[in-house]
Amino acid sequence: MWGYVAPLRDMQFVLDEWLEAGKDWAQIPAFAELGADTVQQILAAAADFAAHTLQPINLPADRSGCRWEAGDVRTPQGFVQAYRQFREAGWPALACDPEYGGQGLPLLLNAALYEMLMAANHAWSMYPGIVHGAYDCLRTHASREIRSRYLPKIVSGEWLCTMCLTEPQAGSDVGLVRTRAEPRADGTYSISGTKIFISGGEHDLTDNILHLVLARLPDAPAGTRGISLFLVPKRLPTAGSPANALRCEGIEKKMGIKGSATCVMNFGGAQGWLIGEPHRGLAAMFVMMNAARLHVGLQGLGHAEMAYQNARRHAAERRQMRSPERPADAGEAHPGGADPIDFHPAMRRTLMTLRALVEGERALGYWSAHLLDLAEHDPDESRRAAAQDLLSLLTPVIKSFFTENGFNLSSAALQVFGGYGYIQDYGIEQSVRDSRIAMIYEGSNEIQGVDFLVRKVIGDGGRKFKLLLQWIADEAAACRAVPALEQFGAELDALTGRWQKVTGEIIAEAGTAPAAAYGIAGDHLRVAGLCLLGACWARTARVSMARSQEPFYRGKLDAARFYFDCLLPEAGWRLDLIGRRHLPLPWVRPTE
Amino acid sequence: MWGYVAPLRDMQFVLDEWLEAGKDWAQIPAFAELGADTVQQILAAAADFAAHTLQPINLPADRSGCRWEAGDVRTPQGFVQAYRQFREAGWPALACDPEYGGQGLPLLLNAALYEMLMAANHAWSMYPGIVHGAYDCLRTHASREIRSRYLPKIVSGEWLCTMCLTEPQAGSDVGLVRTRAEPRADGTYSISGTKIFISGGEHDLTDNILHLVLARLPDAPAGTRGISLFLVPKRLPTAGSPANALRCEGIEKKMGIKGSATCVMNFGGAQGWLIGEPHRGLAAMFVMMNAARLHVGLQGLGHAEMAYQNARRHAAERRQMRSPERPADAGEAHPGGADPIDFHPAMRRTLMTLRALVEGERALGYWSAHLLDLAEHDPDESRRAAAQDLLSLLTPVIKSFFTENGFNLSSAALQVFGGYGYIQDYGIEQSVRDSRIAMIYEGSNEIQGVDFLVRKVIGDGGRKFKLLLQWIADEAAACRAVPALEQFGAELDALTGRWQKVTGEIIAEAGTAPAAAYGIAGDHLRVAGLCLLGACWARTARVSMARSQEPFYRGKLDAARFYFDCLLPEAGWRLDLIGRRHLPLPWVRPTE
Repeated sequence: MWGYVAPLRDMQFVLDEWLEAGKDWAQIPAFAELGADTVQQILAAAADFAAHTLQPINLPADRSGCRWEAGDVRTPQGFVQAYRQFREAGWPALACDPEYGGQGLPLLLNAALYEMLMAANHAWSMYPGIVHGAYDCLRTHASREIRSRYLPKIVSGEWLCTMCLTEPQAGSDVGLVRTRAEPRADGTYSISGTKIFISGGEHDLTDNILHLVLARLPDAPAGTRGISLFLVPKRLPTAGSPANALRCEGIEKKMGIKGSATCVMNFGGAQGWLIGEPHRGLAAMFVMMNAARLHVGLQGLGHAEMAYQNARRHAAERRQMRSPERPADAGEAHPGGADPIDFHPAMRRTLMTLRALVEGERALGYWSAHLLDLAEHDPDESRRAAAQDLLSLLTPVIKSFFTENGFNLSSAALQVFGGYGYIQDYGIEQSVRDSRIAMIYEGSNEIQGVDFLVRKVIGDGGRKFKLLLQWIADEAAACRAVPALEQFGAELDALTGRWQKVTGEIIAEAGTAPAAAYGIAGDHLRVAGLCLLGACWARTARVSMARSQEPFYRGKLDAARFYFDCLLPEAGWRLDLIGRRHLPLPWVRPTE
Repeated sequence: MWGYVAPLRDMQFVLDEWLEAGKDWAQIPAFAELGADTVQQILAAAADFAAHTLQPINLPADRSGCRWEAGDVRTPQGFVQAYRQFREAGWPALACDPEYGGQGLPLLLNAALYEMLMAANHAWSMYPGIVHGAYDCLRTHASREIRSRYLPKIVSGEWLCTMCLTEPQAGSDVGLVRTRAEPRADGTYSISGTKIFISGGEHDLTDNILHLVLARLPDAPAGTRGISLFLVPKRLPTAGSPANALRCEGIEKKMGIKGSATCVMNFGGAQGWLIGEPHRGLAAMFVMMNAARLHVGLQGLGHAEMAYQNARRHAAERRQMRSPERPADAGEAHPGGADPIDFHPAMRRTLMTLRALVEGERALGYWSAHLLDLAEHDPDESRRAAAQDLLSLLTPVIKSFFTENGFNLSSAALQVFGGYGYIQDYGIEQSVRDSRIAMIYEGSNEIQGVDFLVRKVIGDGGRKFKLLLQWIADEAAACRAVPALEQFGAELDALTGRWQKVTGEIIAEAGTAPAAAYGIAGDHLRVAGLCLLGACWARTARVSMARSQEPFYRGKLDAARFYFDCLLPEAGWRLDLIGRRHLPLPWVRPTE
């Protein structure tokens, strides 16, 4: 019963009607030839791979986990074959530059692809999931020689990549990295140190693994301004591809994503190549991290979709008790008979919450992916810049809002399954465990809050933030022009008005009382997610008005109303909390 | 580093200063001799057992789980020895009637005992945890013969008990139970059917296990009014104690509490004894279920305490980044050095949220346990009745509010551990998994919402609800009389005023629009929890005022203020949602 059916109809709705992506693609030479049929075929093929290859090996992989032996790692049964199939179908090349063998398709399609892969099998998707970020990082910062040597192998999927940031003492605080890089006579470097929590640091999917490693040069200043980035391949690019001086010392036993090998990596004087400028490694790595953060957000969406569709199916089949009300087309209840639990108001509340967040996030997430394409390809320079500015704000919102929802919605769906949700025969308890990691890695959600409010909103005095508010205000204005949707517009305006005002106050006081912003950064980010989803649902309602007689669009209008009634109001409460930011925040010390 | 230190200082505060339990005990003949020293000794001994016997076997038990073989179940290593120690120390007898070998101590102490046991080892505590409810059920409803045969064995801990309600088709809906009971010539019954999710249905801790089983007599009406309760022992009370016709068919693989055997039980014409009246089994079982629901609430408190104290210790040791502000006594920061993460505002928010909910719940939970004692022993009949009425409302609040917080706070604490929280070497990921079940069993939290609002508040037209409001209003009035605490009183009054008003409307419309209450019952229950904890913190602040120069009481006042600033306002948002209860709640059908 537990299974995955890709939400292709909704994806198509977002692409064609909500984003009208085709209109933008038509203006971009690289995508001008891309037809609706091709897009449909690509999504259908991805859906098939996710549902029929990846999903069936997800639960068994959770049981078996990975196996470490003397430095080697064996992935769970079926992972190697699935990866071979993935590679042979050309999926790694989807959104890469034809110069390196890529198919040159939009990142928007890559986002839809990964939503499906991650919904069906989060753990497996960890191996290829990071690659596009590494590809981007190398494409932007590596020398021509490195690019031509490595990018074709990455694009073809022949080799996979890792991000090696974390060390035991350096988690959120990358500035504490101690791994050393000593220059060699031949212009390369000797890398020495231990990295932990390295996803896919070792595995049996590919012959070679390319590690992107943060380390310090001998003359490095302390802190984040003394960190450089190195490419450290598992196998060296000399005759016979000898092994580099690095080793997987072990893998972690984790709460979830057990099919993904989380490695302790020891670099014992391994040969590495500098990527970008000395001491500027963090800037280079941020190309990769931003890609990774949007990607992690989509993991949250994938989990929420998986939880939603399975809870919905279960709730339609499971019968318990008479409901106090029944749908008009349900027919007469059997005397004494029990109703499907999706008749019961509490379950409908849960299922509608799942639906409204999942479908709203799909619109917002795909819009962000579309902005990635526009930031690179839009013929208009100012539109490219605006897309980049919006992305810089959207990235922390999507990373934290989607992953928090991914976990909480998985848990809400587990509740729909009752006692069955807690046992391992159903997939939902695995979803809860798997989805939890996404709130932590690639910058914890607390770090995202600070990134959004302190670094990005306060950081430029609110310039980029105005762009984001304008996007919401435009949607609100469009709704106000439609009589049936006036209320959506008014509610959005009221909330974003409060949000703008309080954010203006925070920006103004940043010089004199900078600490207050940190204590409410999480609420502020949550308001961002709620208001952005409000605008997404407003637009969905507007797009759906003309066809409101058809069940699909009727359902969209119902879900939009539910979002405004039951979910958006959380933003009001969070704004109250933000207003209390100068109240004392007590210290909690363990001696108490 | 992961470990348990029982919060004895706070327990003592709640017992002596917050509840002033001794004053009530002095009026009750059964407890009049109970001295403060004895109470302290009991709690210290329980703390020692929890920390040094139960906690060390908790993580290994999660790894190994239970083993089923041919109908037998072996519990994890150390469980049998710990149970023997528990029994020999006389803990099962603590709050039982001396008539059956009990120590006749207050249930309040039993609650403190179980908070500690469950914090240290939820899975192990499942085996004895249900016993007091079974004891109560038998004491109230069983014949004299059954009582004298079984209660001494239960009180001594020689035998353990189970509750056999759930069947595959009958979860929340007990009315769908199909297990049959056929009368035998000797006045006993033959019980046949399959029960699932039976905690401790089979194990190696005791020789005999007493199953309390819901089943239908041949002439039973359909639904909940045709269910009878039977005592079905694993070993029959005849010479040689032959095995009864029942068998554990298997145990579940679960998300958590893996050391607790969750059994499929097959009754194949097993001999059973009717408890209470025919067809009135549910009423008898409710004695047990109410005890179990308060008990499950304390599991949530135990998990939250464990999460809080370990997160607090970790946050004081782990250093990452400079904090934007530092405590006055922290001294100068090292140049470029990283601060303990409990300096960072986001972490302080999390830690204070843990603290304020944990300590607030301890007061509320222990008050409820004290009410159990008063309901039975208070010399004044009207006070006994009032205690019973309050308990009837507090039970669903404590069950759902505490367990929801137990899970969410465990997850919040996991976030404090960052990546380390997700790996199994630390205990917090197990806490998240273990705590999740408590939101489901003993009546899902959705069922608790309906129980509170529909059955209990609407059910008697708000009579009992007024008692609860009065208790909060009394506390608010007492605060308003203290100048420094006026604001607490005013805020409590404002929120409970709104809550009373909207609840009055719901009661008034129950006849004409009964369904609306079901859709917001969860919010309503959450408001109950938040307002009750508000009153608890108001009282804590009031009690602490006189000694506010001492760190312990200063900390209490800080935490009270934090609760009112940052946590209580959620009630306002939930009240807004309750006000929207007549808005359409869409149907979610899987065909969409």
